[in-house]
Amino acid sequence: MTIQFTSWLTELNTILNKEQISTSDSVREQHAKGESYDGAIMPDVVLYPETTRQVSAIMQLASKHHIPVTPVAANSSLEGHTVPVRGGISLDLTRMNRIVSFSAEDLLIVVQPGVTYPQINEYVKRSGLFFPVDPGAHASLGGMISTNASGTAAVRYGVTGDYVLALEVVMPDGQIIRTGSKARKSSSGYNLKRLFCGAEGTLGVITEATIRLTGLPEAASAARVPFVNTQVATEFVTSLIQAGVPVARCELIDAQSVRAVNAHQGTQYPEEVTVFLEFHGNPAGVEADALFAQQLAEDAGALAFEASSDPQARAQLWEARHALYYAEVAANPGMHSVVTDVAVPISQLPVIVQSALQKYEDAGYNAYLVGHVGDGNFHLTIFYDPADTGARDAIEAIAHDMVRQALQVGGTSTGEHGVGLRKLKYMQEEHGASLELMRVIKDAFDPSGIMNPGKKLPA
Amino acid sequence: MTIQFTSWLTELNTILNKEQISTSDSVREQHAKGESYDGAIMPDVVLYPETTRQVSAIMQLASKHHIPVTPVAANSSLEGHTVPVRGGISLDLTRMNRIVSFSAEDLLIVVQPGVTYPQINEYVKRSGLFFPVDPGAHASLGGMISTNASGTAAVRYGVTGDYVLALEVVMPDGQIIRTGSKARKSSSGYNLKRLFCGAEGTLGVITEATIRLTGLPEAASAARVPFVNTQVATEFVTSLIQAGVPVARCELIDAQSVRAVNAHQGTQYPEEVTVFLEFHGNPAGVEADALFAQQLAEDAGALAFEASSDPQARAQLWEARHALYYAEVAANPGMHSVVTDVAVPISQLPVIVQSALQKYEDAGYNAYLVGHVGDGNFHLTIFYDPADTGARDAIEAIAHDMVRQALQVGGTSTGEHGVGLRKLKYMQEEHGASLELMRVIKDAFDPSGIMNPGKKLPA
Repeated sequence: MTIQFTSWLTELNTILNKEQISTSDSVREQHAKGESYDGAIMPDVVLYPETTRQVSAIMQLASKHHIPVTPVAANSSLEGHTVPVRGGISLDLTRMNRIVSFSAEDLLIVVQPGVTYPQINEYVKRSGLFFPVDPGAHASLGGMISTNASGTAAVRYGVTGDYVLALEVVMPDGQIIRTGSKARKSSSGYNLKRLFCGAEGTLGVITEATIRLTGLPEAASAARVPFVNTQVATEFVTSLIQAGVPVARCELIDAQSVRAVNAHQGTQYPEEVTVFLEFHGNPAGVEADALFAQQLAEDAGALAFEASSDPQARAQLWEARHALYYAEVAANPGMHSVVTDVAVPISQLPVIVQSALQKYEDAGYNAYLVGHVGDGNFHLTIFYDPADTGARDAIEAIAHDMVRQALQVGGTSTGEHGVGLRKLKYMQEEHGASLELMRVIKDAFDPSGIMNPGKKLPA
Repeated sequence: MTIQFTSWLTELNTILNKEQISTSDSVREQHAKGESYDGAIMPDVVLYPETTRQVSAIMQLASKHHIPVTPVAANSSLEGHTVPVRGGISLDLTRMNRIVSFSAEDLLIVVQPGVTYPQINEYVKRSGLFFPVDPGAHASLGGMISTNASGTAAVRYGVTGDYVLALEVVMPDGQIIRTGSKARKSSSGYNLKRLFCGAEGTLGVITEATIRLTGLPEAASAARVPFVNTQVATEFVTSLIQAGVPVARCELIDAQSVRAVNAHQGTQYPEEVTVFLEFHGNPAGVEADALFAQQLAEDAGALAFEASSDPQARAQLWEARHALYYAEVAANPGMHSVVTDVAVPISQLPVIVQSALQKYEDAGYNAYLVGHVGDGNFHLTIFYDPADTGARDAIEAIAHDMVRQALQVGGTSTGEHGVGLRKLKYMQEEHGASLELMRVIKDAFDPSGIMNPGKKLPA
C-alpha cells in the first residue's frame, strides 16, 4: 500500500463510516471481475456509498487525487465492464437499493441504481403496471441503464433506455446533475439522458433513475414452433412482424440448446431449431394472434405449432428459456465458455448464424444458439476445456470473423451486452469518424479520465 | 449586399448550379419563418443542395467564412426553429426527398431528410409495414428527427427518435459522419444518434436517416367517449393504461374544439370534453379492447361510449382530429393564434389544464384544448385579434405561468414541438446544471457556432 493511497484512505473516513470501506482481499477479489471471462484485476478499495451526497464526496476526492472509479452493483456484466483495470475505487452501489417513490397514476417509479428489475416488478405488481425489460440475469437498474440492456421482450417493449424518464448523475468532479423530467416525452434540451444510457459508467455515476412503467397485459399466450433450420425460422418471424402481429417475445433456439433444456429442466420439447413466441393482449386477442401465427407457421413449413395460454405452461416455457445458460453449463461439466452478442439486419441473421455455427463445429467446439430473432440479435455460447491452451484463441478467432461479418452487413458488435473491454477493438471500424465525437464527449465530461477508465472507447 | 457576401456567393457557384441558389426577395421571404408566429428574418441566400457532398461543400464554405446556416425542409416548425436569426444561409433540403432504399425483410427504410412521413407510408404500404409516428402536419423526416416529433400515436408507438436506426450527418466543418447501424438495437458507442434527434439542427445537418418500420395492425377500432370534465377524462385514460390496454391513440379534446370540428367537418359529435380512442390489433382483440374500455368508461362516469371498427367512421374521426387546427382557425376568422406545448406527469394534467383554461376565459380569450393525454402532453391554441396590441403579451403571460407550473411539478416546457426560439427562456430552470453539459457538447461539435445559431440553447 503506497503512502499516497494511505493518505486518501484517511480522507475517505471523513466521508463514509468504516462499514462502508473495505480493503480486505476477499471483498476486493469479489470486485475484480463480473460474470465475464476477462482477466481479474483487484481494486485498491471497495466503497459502499448509501447516498448521492456520499457518491458526490467520493467523486470529489477521486477527482482531486486522480483515482480511477469503477461503478458496480449486481455485477452481472458479461463484457468486463466492472473490472477495475487501473485499480483505485470499486464503487459498489448495492446499498443504494431503495425504491424512492412510486406513482401509479403517473405510471412511473423512482429508484436507486442498486434496485434490480425483479424488485421493481415485485413492488408494483398490485398496480397493474410493470417494467417490461427482461435481460434474464438479476441485473440492477444502474447496470441495465449503463449498458442499455434489453433481452427477450425487446421486440415488443424496447430497451432499457426507452423507459428512462430522468436520471440523477454524479459527474466525475462530484457535481450532481439531473437530466430529463417526469413527463413521458420531451423535446427540450439535448438528450443527455440517452447519452448516459449505455455509457457504461464512463461519463458519471447514476444515483437515481425515474422509470416509466407500462400496463401489464390482461392475458398472454405462448407457442413453440420447431423448424428444419434457422433460415425458415427467421423468415417466419419476419413474416409475423410484417403481418402486424405485435409479438411480445420471440426467441430462436437451436436443437442442441433445446436438448440441454430438456435434460436440465425435465421438459420434453422437440429437439429441433425452435421459435418460442409470446403474445400479450386481451384473451380474445392473444388467442387470435396465436391462431394467425399458426397459419403463418404452417405456410412457412413449421414442423409443428404447440400453443398454450395456460399460465403454468407459459411460465415453464420461459423458465426453461431463462435457465438456458445454466442448462448449457450443466451439459458441459468442467468447461469454460465464451458468449457472443452481435446484432445484424434481420435478413442477415440466418447466413451469419449458420456460418459461425459451421465454423465452430468444424473446429470441434460445442456452440449453442439463442437469438432475439425479431431484433436480429443473437448469442452463441461456445464451450471449451480450460486445459486446452489453444481453445480460447481459436474460439475468439471465429467470433472475431463473425463480428467483422456483422459490421460488414450493417450490424453492430454488441446488441445488448455492451462494449466493456471485449469489444473495444471493433469501435474504430464500427463508428469511423463519429468515434472522434464520442472521444470529445468523454474528454469534456471526464477531463481527468477517472470514470471507469479503459472501457467503452478504445485508447 | 456586402463585398464579403458577394465573395462567398461567387464561391457557391463552384458548388451548386444556379438553380440551386436563390437571393430573390420572394424566396428569401418564404424562408424567413416557419408556421410559428416568431418575427420573420430573411436569410441572405437560400440554397437547395441535392446531395450529401453538396451539403458538405456548403458547410466547409460556411465554416471558412463563419456564415450562419439554418437547415429547413417542410418548414412546419411552430417554435421558430427555421428563422435565420443571424441571416446567412437558409439550407433548404426539400430537394433531398428521395427514398434511398427499402428493405421489407429488414423492416427498415433509408430516406433523405426532405422525405415526408406520408411519403414513407405511401411507399411501403403494400409491404404490411408502416412508420407510425403521426405529428399531423406534413412534416419532413429531417425536421421530425430534429425536434423528436411525436403526435397522436406516441402513447402506443413512441416518438421519432425511437425509430431512428442510423443517421448520416454533415458536421459544421463539412465532415460527413455516420452514427448507428442497420441493427434494430445496439449497445455500442455513445448514443450520438439520440443526441442529433431533437438537436434542432444545431449540431449538424442530417442528410440521411435509416428508419425502423413496424407492422401495420390487421385491424383497428375507434371510440368517442364524452365526459363532464377533463379530470374524469384523464382518470379514465390512466385507468385504461394501468389495465394494460395498449391504446394506440388517445386524444382529449374540449367541448369548444368539438364544436369547431362539427362546424368545419359537418360532423355531429356531442359537444363535450371528449376522449378519442383507437385500438390496434387483430379483429377479435380490438373488439375486446373496445368493450373493456367501455366498461372502464362507464365506471369512470362517461356520458356515452360510441365505438366503431368501421374503417370509414374511423377515418372520418381522425380526419376531424387532424383538421382540428384548421377548424379552430375557421371558427375564429381574421384572428391570430398562439399554440402551447407543455407535458406534465399525467396526474397533473387536469389541474394545469383547468387553471390555464380558466385564466384565458377570465382574460376574454378563446382557448382550445387538445391533449395527448396518455403522454401528459397537451396543446392550447389561443386566438386573438391582431389589432389588439396588448393581446399577445397577455396571452404569453398566462402561457408563461403555465410553463413554470409544469416545470414545478416535474414536467417539461416542450413535449414535442421543440425549443426553437420560444422556449429558450425556460432552459435554465428546466435543466439546471446539466445545461452546462449541453453547452459543452454544442461548443465541441460546432466550435464556430454557425449551426442554426440562437436556437435550442440560451446564449
